[in-house]
Amino acid sequence: MPNIFTLDKEKLISRRHLLKLGLVGAGVTSAASWQIFNSRSQPQVKVPPVETVATSDLATPSKMVREFEYGTLKRENGRIIREFRLTAATSIIQLNSAVSFNIWDLNGHIPGPTLRAKQGDRVRVLFFNQAGHSHSLHFHGVHPSDMDGIRPVRHGAATIYEFDAEPYGVHLYHCHIEPVTRHVAKGLYGMFIIDPPTARPPADEIVLVMAGYDVNDDNRNEYYAFNGLPHYYMDHPIRIYQNQLIRLYVLNIIEYDPVATFHLHANFFKVYPTGMTTKASFESDVITMGTAERHILEFAFRYPGKYMFHPHQDAIAENGCMGQFEVVAESNSQKMTKSS
Amino acid sequence: MPNIFTLDKEKLISRRHLLKLGLVGAGVTSAASWQIFNSRSQPQVKVPPVETVATSDLATPSKMVREFEYGTLKRENGRIIREFRLTAATSIIQLNSAVSFNIWDLNGHIPGPTLRAKQGDRVRVLFFNQAGHSHSLHFHGVHPSDMDGIRPVRHGAATIYEFDAEPYGVHLYHCHIEPVTRHVAKGLYGMFIIDPPTARPPADEIVLVMAGYDVNDDNRNEYYAFNGLPHYYMDHPIRIYQNQLIRLYVLNIIEYDPVATFHLHANFFKVYPTGMTTKASFESDVITMGTAERHILEFAFRYPGKYMFHPHQDAIAENGCMGQFEVVAESNSQKMTKSS
Amino acid sequence: MPNIFTLDKEKLISRRHLLKLGLVGAGVTSAASWQIFNSRSQPQVKVPPVETVATSDLATPSKMVREFEYGTLKRENGRIIREFRLTAATSIIQLNSAVSFNIWDLNGHIPGPTLRAKQGDRVRVLFFNQAGHSHSLHFHGVHPSDMDGIRPVRHGAATIYEFDAEPYGVHLYHCHIEPVTRHVAKGLYGMFIIDPPTARPPADEIVLVMAGYDVNDDNRNEYYAFNGLPHYYMDHPIRIYQNQLIRLYVLNIIEYDPVATFHLHANFFKVYPTGMTTKASFESDVITMGTAERHILEFAFRYPGKYMFHPHQDAIAENGCMGQFEVVAESNSQKMTKSS
Repeated sequence: MPNIFTLDKEKLISRRHLLKLGLVGAGVTSAASWQIFNSRSQPQVKVPPVETVATSDLATPSKMVREFEYGTLKRENGRIIREFRLTAATSIIQLNSAVSFNIWDLNGHIPGPTLRAKQGDRVRVLFFNQAGHSHSLHFHGVHPSDMDGIRPVRHGAATIYEFDAEPYGVHLYHCHIEPVTRHVAKGLYGMFIIDPPTARPPADEIVLVMAGYDVNDDNRNEYYAFNGLPHYYMDHPIRIYQNQLIRLYVLNIIEYDPVATFHLHANFFKVYPTGMTTKASFESDVITMGTAERHILEFAFRYPGKYMFHPHQDAIAENGCMGQFEVVAESNSQKMTKSS
Repeated sequence: MPNIFTLDKEKLISRRHLLKLGLVGAGVTSAASWQIFNSRSQPQVKVPPVETVATSDLATPSKMVREFEYGTLKRENGRIIREFRLTAATSIIQLNSAVSFNIWDLNGHIPGPTLRAKQGDRVRVLFFNQAGHSHSLHFHGVHPSDMDGIRPVRHGAATIYEFDAEPYGVHLYHCHIEPVTRHVAKGLYGMFIIDPPTARPPADEIVLVMAGYDVNDDNRNEYYAFNGLPHYYMDHPIRIYQNQLIRLYVLNIIEYDPVATFHLHANFFKVYPTGMTTKASFESDVITMGTAERHILEFAFRYPGKYMFHPHQDAIAENGCMGQFEVVAESNSQKMTKSS
Repeated sequence: MPNIFTLDKEKLISRRHLLKLGLVGAGVTSAASWQIFNSRSQPQVKVPPVETVATSDLATPSKMVREFEYGTLKRENGRIIREFRLTAATSIIQLNSAVSFNIWDLNGHIPGPTLRAKQGDRVRVLFFNQAGHSHSLHFHGVHPSDMDGIRPVRHGAATIYEFDAEPYGVHLYHCHIEPVTRHVAKGLYGMFIIDPPTARPPADEIVLVMAGYDVNDDNRNEYYAFNGLPHYYMDHPIRIYQNQLIRLYVLNIIEYDPVATFHLHANFFKVYPTGMTTKASFESDVITMGTAERHILEFAFRYPGKYMFHPHQDAIAENGCMGQFEVVAESNSQKMTKSS
């Protein structure tokens, strides 16, 4: 059993233990069956019908834009645990009709799922590495040193990261094995939202993860994307309702470029830096974000129509990190009925 | 009449219509004769005599530093319209004694004129494209989708952008035709200031637009400038009065570089992010600005003398984006007499 | 006496004058004997024992992390003067076992000493240039034009910069001779802290200066460091006590890269922008800093263990700008006894 290491609480787990956990062989396929608790029922918020688009199973921007993974709730020793399972594997993503790229996925997706907890929850992340190389998951958030996810987890091994979800904000997780840039750029990243004790006001909540693809390994990105697929939201705009509050969770995890801005057309957003406030700090329509920076941006569109969003570094935008909102007239939202 | 398109309110106008509007052949020469309403009379503010320097007609930093274009006021259906006319054309700018560069100008200038309105004004921009390629004007600000300026206006064609000026702040306009980076970098940009309902306190108001010149088309800038001409304000400092409030409107529209900082020597400025507040958010003497970011910066100099300002990325500064304030002693300002 | 120039108060001083000041030949060796007033006695704050590591005398991260130079206090004409002496010289730094690099040092160190004054102090800096080329010291802070440190001081010459220390904040000084980028990158920089009139709350105060080394003169950095030596704090973590307030003074003076972020693992910091406030503006665990930006960041670690800090531009981190805090359990701090 060469895989057994006990490093305080962060355990590298033996294959026998993995079998007990039911993780071996689970990988991608079981990911879909993991129970997802959507704890946020927001009857006040309506979402326009979403176009069903046949895309790669790896990057599914049409779903990811509003998909949050709340984990499995368990009770242990009188305490509620929110358990997430993340499996790293290898895949090939088709970036466009001509270009494919070898990536590392999480639960069969790139970016990894948007994990979501509430401040004070006990979070347990079961990480299983089937991705060939050693990897890890480093969470941004407060946690003890041995839960920091900087130790390598070998191919075929698993580990558990466990910590209290704090502080509230929009955070992230990513592989922290050197060269970190490459481990992140090849897909091992995702958003990690911690909700405040008192829920934010009802809003149509949308996830946008900006990332790059260095397909020729020259330490520069040839392609960029929101939520995994270059140009996707240009061809398939994100439909939102006129005058309804939109809450963007935006993460810049573009490697190789020092910063990316985020620009919204024909509107301005309120900025909640790192999502760590419940009161906006300032307003703008362009914000500069270093790698690993992330914010909550809030706005509503007054007029129907299509509106672009993209970094104002146009090379990044024009190579794929560009999308559109399609604002649907209020009359079409049936006045926000209280349908479930 | 191949030029006639009706796209909601954003109209591509026929040549016949242009003739009626008096736009054909107007171009550069008529720009000077457009009526400019300087609605801000600030008897409390005095400005030191400005040195008259013979420069290119294209980039006129000595004038641009304090020149605001308030448009022509019209009454239509009982409503006041503030009308601006912008014509794109091709020019050659002499960057220094050895280097000239083909640009696209607006009303015969680079950068384009600093347009200025008051929050709530109805703004109408007549855009006439005489610049060879297709272009457009995309305004930062709140407006309907069809006024967003992302549709190409062909050479010889014109269009009208019309919207309410909101929200107050320091914004910008620029061409949004791909490759946007090149269309912007070759000159199609300018500042767009919207004043708040209650005027800001009296101040000597100064415009600084940071931009770059990629003269060999290698997607890197070889030259940089404040207000169009490299190094201009080093040789011809901007004269300001000691102890008088200075209000800088600063825009970073440098393409190809991910960010530029703005540093003021021997002083600190209050920052009004995107000019969207009337209360300063913080103070510094170095601020990082992504492309298309812009702010109001306020300060006064206590001691006479010359003080540099420049990005603290010295390669940008030393290739032209560097200038000086020359602070003139208070005694020379004749104690801010109420002369008009 | 070719060295005598009188330029208002900023004097270039003759060799004869230097002899009177006792500066000639003083250089590096005398630096250590300059009297240092540590005016901050903080009996409430305890610091874990610091490992003594034999490193280069040039870069001494183990000392620099908590070393502040308060200058020599003098009384002149009834006023207190805080006098600092800085001598530039040439040195060769050993970056690792294989790579050495010619630098310019200040008082025999790279970075230069962290100068510290209190708002309102009269500061006098005696600068002596023994570094071969012309240099200068430009201080960030409010001062008259002739104290701005942009005039070259020739090899063998000296000058005096004198000004009131204001406003409070975390500032910097650096050579301002063109090419400024190279003069800074080769070592002529340091932090300059001005304390507010009312002292900040007791804290373990730590200096982190991020800088780069372009060892092959290609205008790109091959190495990076916190406080002078690549990777030093990875091998020799900065020991801090659990639950004790840490006050970081962080400066980004990396040239050639447009920005660097600063990321703290497993925790979040309160940000005091440019150190110019006594109330935090926001919180995060990643902050983007342009060259010459600096902030105060405050935090405490709840759990013992090792925690990394580094720019989230991993190429910068992995080439040397990476370190660790080692959080020592509270019980080991003997409950913050009032030992001196």
